[in-house]
Amino acid sequence: MTNIDETHDPARKSWVATANHHADFPIQNLPLGVFSVGSGEPRIGCAIGDKILDVRGLAETGLLDDRWLPALTRADLNDWFARGHEDSRALRRLLSDLLSGEAQRAAVEPHLIDQSDTTMHLPCHIGDYTDFYVGIHHATNVGKQFRPDSPLLPNYKHVPIGYHGRASSVTVSGQPVVRPKGQRKQPEAEAPEYGPSRRLDYELELGIFVGRGNRLGETIPIGKASDHIAGYCLLNDWSARDLQAWEYQPLGPFLAKNFQTSISPWVITSDALAPFRKAVPPRPEGDPDPLPYLSDRADQQSGGLGIGLKASLSTAAMREAGATPYVLSEGEADAAMYWSAAQIVAHHASNGCNLQPGDLIGTGTLSTDRQSGLGSLLEISKGGNEPLVLPNGETRSFLEDGDELTLSALCSADGAVTIGFGTCIGRVLPARR
Amino acid sequence: MTNIDETHDPARKSWVATANHHADFPIQNLPLGVFSVGSGEPRIGCAIGDKILDVRGLAETGLLDDRWLPALTRADLNDWFARGHEDSRALRRLLSDLLSGEAQRAAVEPHLIDQSDTTMHLPCHIGDYTDFYVGIHHATNVGKQFRPDSPLLPNYKHVPIGYHGRASSVTVSGQPVVRPKGQRKQPEAEAPEYGPSRRLDYELELGIFVGRGNRLGETIPIGKASDHIAGYCLLNDWSARDLQAWEYQPLGPFLAKNFQTSISPWVITSDALAPFRKAVPPRPEGDPDPLPYLSDRADQQSGGLGIGLKASLSTAAMREAGATPYVLSEGEADAAMYWSAAQIVAHHASNGCNLQPGDLIGTGTLSTDRQSGLGSLLEISKGGNEPLVLPNGETRSFLEDGDELTLSALCSADGAVTIGFGTCIGRVLPARR
Repeated sequence: MTNIDETHDPARKSWVATANHHADFPIQNLPLGVFSVGSGEPRIGCAIGDKILDVRGLAETGLLDDRWLPALTRADLNDWFARGHEDSRALRRLLSDLLSGEAQRAAVEPHLIDQSDTTMHLPCHIGDYTDFYVGIHHATNVGKQFRPDSPLLPNYKHVPIGYHGRASSVTVSGQPVVRPKGQRKQPEAEAPEYGPSRRLDYELELGIFVGRGNRLGETIPIGKASDHIAGYCLLNDWSARDLQAWEYQPLGPFLAKNFQTSISPWVITSDALAPFRKAVPPRPEGDPDPLPYLSDRADQQSGGLGIGLKASLSTAAMREAGATPYVLSEGEADAAMYWSAAQIVAHHASNGCNLQPGDLIGTGTLSTDRQSGLGSLLEISKGGNEPLVLPNGETRSFLEDGDELTLSALCSADGAVTIGFGTCIGRVLPARR
Repeated sequence: MTNIDETHDPARKSWVATANHHADFPIQNLPLGVFSVGSGEPRIGCAIGDKILDVRGLAETGLLDDRWLPALTRADLNDWFARGHEDSRALRRLLSDLLSGEAQRAAVEPHLIDQSDTTMHLPCHIGDYTDFYVGIHHATNVGKQFRPDSPLLPNYKHVPIGYHGRASSVTVSGQPVVRPKGQRKQPEAEAPEYGPSRRLDYELELGIFVGRGNRLGETIPIGKASDHIAGYCLLNDWSARDLQAWEYQPLGPFLAKNFQTSISPWVITSDALAPFRKAVPPRPEGDPDPLPYLSDRADQQSGGLGIGLKASLSTAAMREAGATPYVLSEGEADAAMYWSAAQIVAHHASNGCNLQPGDLIGTGTLSTDRQSGLGSLLEISKGGNEPLVLPNGETRSFLEDGDELTLSALCSADGAVTIGFGTCIGRVLPARR
């Protein structure tokens, strides 16, 4: 399933000088995204070092496969995702060759733009956004706050739990998040009231983009599920815990989540992640085997995502003092995920639900089993009972106005060049009057 | 808020003869939808009697406001919905005049097409689909099966409960529904298994189409909420009860619902419903007042929807014998709804969630407090414990392969011409192998 080829060769260098020491975007990464310059139309680009290769511009050079042009010259990646993983791999090979070899450098170089001169957009039109709950330590930590003796519900180890989120309010990194208002009820209060959330939180997640879809009524077999994944991003599932606690029964979170979801702009392809794939960690003794529709040997052998995730906080006071952002959590995705990306996709389509190119699927909060790897303030502050003390003496149970949250991710492995996801940033603005 | 004008005049007749005795589509209705003929492109039309007025064709006559043309000559109603309720009302007035007066008959008549010659499509691109739970008798009936002593949760009378559904699997009336597979666990079984649902159900709901939207971070005040509603349809929220029971905790229904949702093709405008609006039934003694962001005097006076809903079942055996479909449920929407459509919309946007033109919002199952008005088999058969006996001796706890479910709705009031919603039909096909 993993396809390590010359595009992953650590000896391969780019003639884009900044790529060769870039933490996120060396030539071994080559993620796609959608950018614009000034008031120009959004177009598809590929991140390389601190530059973007304008794929639409590249199309004009005649260096791209003609069959790809309709999909690659649009303002979103949906049609490209629909073409599937073979084309994705072929484009990766081509871009890797063009950006490393000198043969076409003169033709390609004019289509490089400084990232700092661009504005990033959502990489695709998101038809449906689904959020899962595969972070077992997160589910356990949250469950403990409600049910200390049996934090995980009986279905958790059988069903990859998920629910539908709001597609319209998914925004790209950098867009501020307005503190939502809503109904919240203090435990001791007789009635709820409506006002700004007092327990605004972040959630550290991975996002999965659907590539080729399936037709309504048809399923995606687990063995084919990886082929339906176009790539990955970082995802911050902003959450208003007070709204959530009051509204979520019996149909799940709604207004506590749908006011905004932030994602990083670059789609890290499945192929770029190949060197960082691992065996899925074995299930603890006594846990049930996944049902056959969720079992696949290849996925067990390489479905673990060796992605190092990080969430950092910068308060207004910290920024004013020029302080470094404070690291809230750090951990590996595969250590947090009870279900793999392939299992998520196969389960989602197991009832015939039609996934479409560009659909976004969140993993759910990815907390590890260590205190340093908790993916939300709800867990870090134990439901607000043990406020976090920052180096400058400020405390946080939940996010305050002016707080800026940054998600980032790096993938490292022996014999591979480290690649990264870029960042997913959002600053909290006060509630509107 | 209600706007009764000459378009509602019962004396007004159309020169389209079938309109004047048509149960659903007299000239007082004038719903919009999207249709195609043969392999032609989908286009916007207006139902009148057993005909469709081709609005795109009408555009070529020069009889429509030029500013409307870009929105009315598309293959979906999204741009038209975005123009808001003033334009919707003006179009209604114009169509009513054109189809009743003889002055333009010669220009208009060539653009009428027999409904039987057309294929109907979804009326718009549905960006997000949300389902609410405002049917208090349904919530009580379902709650009783889990918690006989306290069927309604403490938040129910304060919060219009809702959750996000699947937009991609919303289909138009007529498309069959493939019995979904999924995980279900028998109460006595040790482990779940994966297979075709054994408890497939329908849910009788109204759908609300969002007209003009709101921007992310902004709310929709309750007093303006009705202006953001483009119209209504019938909605069948197909449900796999066995999947639902096993998967729904803690994040709500997911695969039990997202395999398919069927809607009727015609958008019944808010203006067409004006004569059938009523005061919202008073809340029972002791119930809390809605919070201020959900309170509006005008809505209390006219937010009740006098829509008579009906669900009918036809089994394969019944169709073979030429039997009339069996009426499963009949009841009035306003008698079922604890929260009004305006309250639903205002609540949905109360945290700044951005609604967009064409978004679909289900009310949730609309059961009345009578045995004859239960909107799902789960309620009719009391969770499968008391199977329904059909006139031909067949029994039903849940839907069997070959069963065809039809939703319909009629609005009647003194001094008004009755209008209808058309039908929302779906036949159950066996699960795929």
